Amino acid sequence: MIRLQSYLAGRWQDGNGPGTKLVDPVTAETLASASGDGLNMAEALDHARAKGGPALRALTFAGRAALINEVAGVLTENRERYNALSLANSGTTAHDTMLDVDGGIGTLKYYASIGRKLGEVHTLAEAGIEQMNKDENFRGMHLWTTVRGVAVHINAFNFPSWGLWEKAAVALLAGVPFLAKPATATALVAYEMFKDVIAKGVLPEGAASLLCGGGRDLMEHLKPGDLVSFTGSADTALMLRSHPNVQASNIRFAVEADSLNLCALGPDAGPDSVEFGAFVKEVTRELTIKSGQKCTAIRRILVPRERVEAVIAALSASLAKIKQGDPRDESVRMGPLVNASQTQAALDGLAQLKAEARVVVGGGEAKGCFLPATVLLCDQPMTGKAVHEIEVFGPVATLMPYDSVDQAIALAHKGGGSLAASVFSGDAGFNATFVPAIATAHGRVQVVDAVVAGGHTGHGVVMPHCIHGGPGRAGGGEELGGLRGLRFYMQRTAIQANKATLDAFIAKSATVSL
Amino acid sequence: MIRLQSYLAGRWQDGNGPGTKLVDPVTAETLASASGDGLNMAEALDHARAKGGPALRALTFAGRAALINEVAGVLTENRERYNALSLANSGTTAHDTMLDVDGGIGTLKYYASIGRKLGEVHTLAEAGIEQMNKDENFRGMHLWTTVRGVAVHINAFNFPSWGLWEKAAVALLAGVPFLAKPATATALVAYEMFKDVIAKGVLPEGAASLLCGGGRDLMEHLKPGDLVSFTGSADTALMLRSHPNVQASNIRFAVEADSLNLCALGPDAGPDSVEFGAFVKEVTRELTIKSGQKCTAIRRILVPRERVEAVIAALSASLAKIKQGDPRDESVRMGPLVNASQTQAALDGLAQLKAEARVVVGGGEAKGCFLPATVLLCDQPMTGKAVHEIEVFGPVATLMPYDSVDQAIALAHKGGGSLAASVFSGDAGFNATFVPAIATAHGRVQVVDAVVAGGHTGHGVVMPHCIHGGPGRAGGGEELGGLRGLRFYMQRTAIQANKATLDAFIAKSATVSL
Repeated sequence: MIRLQSYLAGRWQDGNGPGTKLVDPVTAETLASASGDGLNMAEALDHARAKGGPALRALTFAGRAALINEVAGVLTENRERYNALSLANSGTTAHDTMLDVDGGIGTLKYYASIGRKLGEVHTLAEAGIEQMNKDENFRGMHLWTTVRGVAVHINAFNFPSWGLWEKAAVALLAGVPFLAKPATATALVAYEMFKDVIAKGVLPEGAASLLCGGGRDLMEHLKPGDLVSFTGSADTALMLRSHPNVQASNIRFAVEADSLNLCALGPDAGPDSVEFGAFVKEVTRELTIKSGQKCTAIRRILVPRERVEAVIAALSASLAKIKQGDPRDESVRMGPLVNASQTQAALDGLAQLKAEARVVVGGGEAKGCFLPATVLLCDQPMTGKAVHEIEVFGPVATLMPYDSVDQAIALAHKGGGSLAASVFSGDAGFNATFVPAIATAHGRVQVVDAVVAGGHTGHGVVMPHCIHGGPGRAGGGEELGGLRGLRFYMQRTAIQANKATLDAFIAKSATVSL
Repeated sequence: MIRLQSYLAGRWQDGNGPGTKLVDPVTAETLASASGDGLNMAEALDHARAKGGPALRALTFAGRAALINEVAGVLTENRERYNALSLANSGTTAHDTMLDVDGGIGTLKYYASIGRKLGEVHTLAEAGIEQMNKDENFRGMHLWTTVRGVAVHINAFNFPSWGLWEKAAVALLAGVPFLAKPATATALVAYEMFKDVIAKGVLPEGAASLLCGGGRDLMEHLKPGDLVSFTGSADTALMLRSHPNVQASNIRFAVEADSLNLCALGPDAGPDSVEFGAFVKEVTRELTIKSGQKCTAIRRILVPRERVEAVIAALSASLAKIKQGDPRDESVRMGPLVNASQTQAALDGLAQLKAEARVVVGGGEAKGCFLPATVLLCDQPMTGKAVHEIEVFGPVATLMPYDSVDQAIALAHKGGGSLAASVFSGDAGFNATFVPAIATAHGRVQVVDAVVAGGHTGHGVVMPHCIHGGPGRAGGGEELGGLRGLRFYMQRTAIQANKATLDAFIAKSATVSL
């Protein structure tokens, strides 16, 4: 059995006690254990601030991009090993594993690529030098510089690789050291990846730290200037963000929380349309990829009331083709949930949804960690409450008929803020009204018409070019989005000076818009 | 005696009980009283959300800019009356009053002007439509839409007019209704201005609400999607932001807190240099304008150790020329502090500073609310603590000698984050090193050399073109900054779609960078 270690203050360390077990959700075999209890968090954070920060800030953006590329290289060399570990520890199919392992590597490569283009500079400048009074020589501009704290990255169990590297890539490019805390249940892949990167000596001392297990006192040791980027449940986010030290030290705290993501079928999309077909395909994918354990997965499905029966029939047929089982069998397209407690939580949530909606596809019985894809129908969603608030983190979604575009907009907002929405419509008028109206409640909206039905990147797939995060229930954070992700790790400062002085800053900066 | 009313839920209302007295700090006369006790905050916020939000969002940016211009017009008509009220309630000189009253009107006009240029659109788009995969038709962009909540503006006592309108201008332009809560002690100007604007019927119902006094339960009635923008002390900010409902409802909360703003004299600036003269003039202004009661006022002054004696002599001579007294006397250049409790708080803070620094100019004795301008010297600022943490909100600042540029940078960061810094140097090499290094700890840095010594806008003056706010102790907020201020009131959403669909959104948006 593997014993996961933590990499803190420049050395591998083990915590006290037996710790938490990491289990194969298919075989129930115990694969590893991890404990972070008793580890010195204050020392770990100080080390990152004192060693990692100055070392990273001394590099230019291009220099940091080169490091990120080296990290991606180390991971690429070993990806087959990570794929096997992911299958064992997360019960993921080959496709699901690819989203996590290759998704992490791809995001690193993307940031290496856009970072290289920023060049041999340490600061970023916004375009425009503005005159503010009668003095033509006196002007204002805005400059971005790297914050001096350490970034704590708290990651979710569903993307142990992607979650680790999508945050790390941006922090490293900004020049901020990070301490990553993977979710213990699935930390095996993150641990092995991290071990390989450290063994190769790619990163400067203190630039990257890893905590496996533990971390209960992490918030206590944060200092002004530190940052927290959290992915996970809204409850845990609330607990951590409300910590007295987080509040008193004014810690910049980003949350990316599970939310009730929306999918809407446009009024135009009849059963024979390309958009209808793409809609059924996408809902099927979203319900079954990673067994629905994706923070962006579709949870609420808006359909014109007159299409409800057609949608149920189509989803029923489509989902019937998805074989669920042990992902070691190559014909299997959907694996188990990640462990017994997640399965129980999904069943509990499903029971709450059933108070307002009835099952129309699949069913709610679980065998071990295997929960079948389940679609519910809530006939009167305008008066529903649980269906807009209870997220079942598994292969479960609720159909909601709408009677007008206004009602569809109102229903979209009842979710209280989500990470992602997708709209399947070829009606330009509907899209022009509906999309901006629901945008306010979403971090990302994807519109699929016949032209892009075959080529879109998917409702739930996070592309690093676009921001990831959403308002309200989704936490209010903003990750990725190309260079926009750097904003979290940098400080914008207005500089007022002689134009010649400003020109000198601009000459030594890359011009960006974050 | 005037009884201030609150304008909530579309009607003027009075709270229970005697409330708080508003006093003339020079004559100690009671001018007015205000009570917000017992007023229905839930109803007021609901009314703003239900009536004001839709009305404002129905207008285009240009339409809202026209409203803002009308508000400025109403205020301009009555500015002489406000000037008299400001003198009475805040004890401000004509120049100090101008900063507040004309500053507020000017900021409204500025936002009317830049808002008009956004045109007849409801959304903002970022430049760039990006291809993300092999499908050339499928692209991504980022769109900004207006949030649907109500903005609560909690304002400080020192700028009753400017504080009200600099926040209101941006909220209105974004299309977000606001409820303003002026600091009760100096609310008279804000109340009269608001009354005039409401009487003229300039704004749609529910777009603007005013709470005079009270507000203790305001945080309880916020709902997801609402916003709070706070200006005042870090302690009050912490209390409000830590409120369980603010945390649980994930309220977007901006803080602009008093901080220990920096002024640095460059190593090059000898006593005969233009920069030295500008430095002495600016420190003198900052100590005496509004009797030092400015959130941006200089609190820590870095000078090369060998210049300490020359700086003390120059400041001593310069401050001796500033006549303090009743601002009704036109020769008076510096008035009192705003009331007895603020005077006592300043004296308490001064006593704490004296543990680490000694008075070298002025002295610490107050007569009534009149506290003379006082400069302290802390010989060993690298080991000081109080001098970097205790802000005396009055005409008090501490000189700190530095021995090297690195030490000056370290001292700047010891302030833990501030709103503004100013640097007086004509040495391009020093500025190139020092300014980016301290920028991370400041929301704004002004560099004054001989070329702009006569034409700069001042260390402490907030120009609406530049962001206002700062990291760490200053609260982490960002106000103003031209269109950048809209960011707080809007949601950025990634839109992924057929390029033709995105082109349609762009055609109906103004292209911006926030």
